[in-house]
Amino acid sequence: MEQVLNYLAQNRDRYLAELKEFIAIPSVSSQSQHNADMQKCAEWISGQMNSIGMQNVQIMPTGGHPVVYSEWLGAPGKPTVLLYGHYDVQPVDPVNLWTTPPFEMTERDGNLYARGTADDKGQVYIHLKGIEALMKHNGGLPVNLKMLIEGEEEVGSANLDKFVKAHKELLKADLVLISDSSMFAKGVPSICYSLRGLSYLEIEVTGAKSDLHSGSFGGSVHNPIQALAELIASLHDKNGKITIPGFYKDVRPLSKKERDAFKKLPFSEKQYAKDLGVKQLYGEKGFSSLERVWARPTLECNGIWGGYTGEGAKTVLPSKAFAKISCRLVPDQKSDKIAKLVEKHLKKIAPKTIDIQVRNLHGGEAAITPIESPGVQAAVAALEKGFGKKPLYQREGGSIPIVVQFKELLGIDTVLLGFGLPDENAHAPNEFINMDNFFGGIRTSVHFFNELPNYWTTKGKKK
Amino acid sequence: MEQVLNYLAQNRDRYLAELKEFIAIPSVSSQSQHNADMQKCAEWISGQMNSIGMQNVQIMPTGGHPVVYSEWLGAPGKPTVLLYGHYDVQPVDPVNLWTTPPFEMTERDGNLYARGTADDKGQVYIHLKGIEALMKHNGGLPVNLKMLIEGEEEVGSANLDKFVKAHKELLKADLVLISDSSMFAKGVPSICYSLRGLSYLEIEVTGAKSDLHSGSFGGSVHNPIQALAELIASLHDKNGKITIPGFYKDVRPLSKKERDAFKKLPFSEKQYAKDLGVKQLYGEKGFSSLERVWARPTLECNGIWGGYTGEGAKTVLPSKAFAKISCRLVPDQKSDKIAKLVEKHLKKIAPKTIDIQVRNLHGGEAAITPIESPGVQAAVAALEKGFGKKPLYQREGGSIPIVVQFKELLGIDTVLLGFGLPDENAHAPNEFINMDNFFGGIRTSVHFFNELPNYWTTKGKKK
Repeated sequence: MEQVLNYLAQNRDRYLAELKEFIAIPSVSSQSQHNADMQKCAEWISGQMNSIGMQNVQIMPTGGHPVVYSEWLGAPGKPTVLLYGHYDVQPVDPVNLWTTPPFEMTERDGNLYARGTADDKGQVYIHLKGIEALMKHNGGLPVNLKMLIEGEEEVGSANLDKFVKAHKELLKADLVLISDSSMFAKGVPSICYSLRGLSYLEIEVTGAKSDLHSGSFGGSVHNPIQALAELIASLHDKNGKITIPGFYKDVRPLSKKERDAFKKLPFSEKQYAKDLGVKQLYGEKGFSSLERVWARPTLECNGIWGGYTGEGAKTVLPSKAFAKISCRLVPDQKSDKIAKLVEKHLKKIAPKTIDIQVRNLHGGEAAITPIESPGVQAAVAALEKGFGKKPLYQREGGSIPIVVQFKELLGIDTVLLGFGLPDENAHAPNEFINMDNFFGGIRTSVHFFNELPNYWTTKGKKK
Repeated sequence: MEQVLNYLAQNRDRYLAELKEFIAIPSVSSQSQHNADMQKCAEWISGQMNSIGMQNVQIMPTGGHPVVYSEWLGAPGKPTVLLYGHYDVQPVDPVNLWTTPPFEMTERDGNLYARGTADDKGQVYIHLKGIEALMKHNGGLPVNLKMLIEGEEEVGSANLDKFVKAHKELLKADLVLISDSSMFAKGVPSICYSLRGLSYLEIEVTGAKSDLHSGSFGGSVHNPIQALAELIASLHDKNGKITIPGFYKDVRPLSKKERDAFKKLPFSEKQYAKDLGVKQLYGEKGFSSLERVWARPTLECNGIWGGYTGEGAKTVLPSKAFAKISCRLVPDQKSDKIAKLVEKHLKKIAPKTIDIQVRNLHGGEAAITPIESPGVQAAVAALEKGFGKKPLYQREGGSIPIVVQFKELLGIDTVLLGFGLPDENAHAPNEFINMDNFFGGIRTSVHFFNELPNYWTTKGKKK
């Protein structure tokens, strides 16, 4: 192992140069002008897989962007890990808020800045290098490995479900490993045991049939921006609770044990507010910020637009106004059910002065993984060796719908081994990955594959 | 007069061809990329003025877009008319909602479609052709005339106040004539005796200091879109009244005479709703739609934006959200006072969870012109001859701030002689001017200049 770790230390510059090349491919899955970049990015990954010794490397078509697959199955009797990641990234606008260009990876203050460094290309790359080092020094891996790197995570993994269903035998494994989340804090390695789900909708409000002069018509028709604002404003009460009937019905309450565990984490509400740049936090009454973000469902406006939004003034009374809203869900809420509740409620409360359309764009379920499972325990051991500290347990407010899909379709649990940080600006300008986490991540990857057989029995139970 | 009217009839095709050329210059004053077009448009007008026999034609610089001036002062003892118009137009977005290109004038169903056909290039051109016909057949005009065509009406006439102050002697006149408004309906010529004023503001709401991942942070900070929606929603009560303290304090109440006069106009609330494409009208309780639009102050959202507004989904919790709002004002409200009231109220009710900035973009005062004035009476006579029908009296919901400026700076009243129609889509896609109104407008222009001396005494009183 010492040789492997020395090798990792000696190759730091090469890792940075390769990651920069990977990041430079603008693999924005939601924007059709980047379709060629998606293909290019898939090819880049398959090239890496081939060069590090993975076998049966394939770029596999889906109804959308392709999946990159490879495997190494030379450890009979050992557990088989299905390593999942995604090579697609979020859009980069507003571009003018980036300090350095979004696809030009730049080192600053010990961080690597660029779109995808944390979510998720950087974390995919961490494992590629962990595997490379093991292959180089041992001529193989301590476990069997299948890699599935998809290109549609940021658009709801629309085609992955079908793909997994069609390749159940190919993807058969003992557990899933995903690095697409964050540690609790810098220097505080942690294991995430639960994810939130998502229901993402778009609302279209129509007033008059065409845009009108706000002088000649203002006062006689319901302005669709005003009507939309009235609808949105009504969705939270004064205690920050969501007013949609039935919304909280299926929420699994936080146990006292969990609430106590969260309280032990090094977290200051005051510092959290300061870090976010707000004078006062906001949220559902009766819960701490960590509880609100990890274990309570929310409803957020992700975008709003209507009327004139350009330079200067235009005295228009617009015909239409739009909003994108999304609910973050917790066990045991169901994405489709919540989307239907939101749609039903909006249509019920919409005034007769306007028309409303609600579109369900995509969704995913929440998930909880047993803390006692051998995969999670191997990850705890690997993190302790990789970062020199015993990790803590946490939840995560974001969504990885595929975790639920793997459980449902392949019947296996997922281990979430996140190397990001909470302030990494994933989905926002100036996304970054911390360099200590990046290199610590590669070490942890090596240790995880080494440790896993120690915790595994043929039945997937702890020794 | 018969010869002049025959001349008008014979030149219809030429008028259309020339107007098409005028319209084709995209003179959008609010967008800096059109600065060269503004200059080109000013030159086109000065060319017309020279060719029809106006004198002292000048393109005069201002702090912004230039003013085009000319005069004809060959009628000693007769009244002097200051004809005001504007050659700038509103932006054309959303461009995809135009049936034909916005700057390519197209005849369809008896209408001429293009940006500026009604507001206000088409109506400026109407007078150019009225003057041309009189000049050609009489070798001069029955009145003295000064023309002032500006290029910043759609951006609040920011530099015109200074311009008028600096050229008080040059612009000295007995009355102002403006054609920048609409008739009551197709086939119902009318005289407008009052305009609304305007206060236009922009609101910027800031939550966290940067965009955040809506999963990792959603639920713990106040979403600025939600906060903005809550602020906007609170500005109207359930009776459609504006909730800002003091907002209605200076409103001059409608007289019984006015309310009765409005009731006599051929107007159906049901048809109005149908024409606008709404199932149900909206507005201040206790007032008819005409009263709401003409004689009651309003608060409209002209634009809203924040977060992700592109194709597909982005799970962002944005840092900022913006809105453009404008209040239409009636006598005797003051624009600056209302802007301050709105700003003060918004800052007072804004929660501590967000920051708010309010910017006063521009404004203008409301106006009322005496129905009994000789200019208005000459206009009534001219409309009756030009359209073969006695016109009715109406108000107008839009704003022409310059009317107030002329009263304040030059001490003279304005006659509003509008040839547009209420459904003309000014400021919206598919703006048009009706062809009957266009040609009837040119006849009315000829008659107005002919009739004015009959109603005028040396003191500007009725004979």
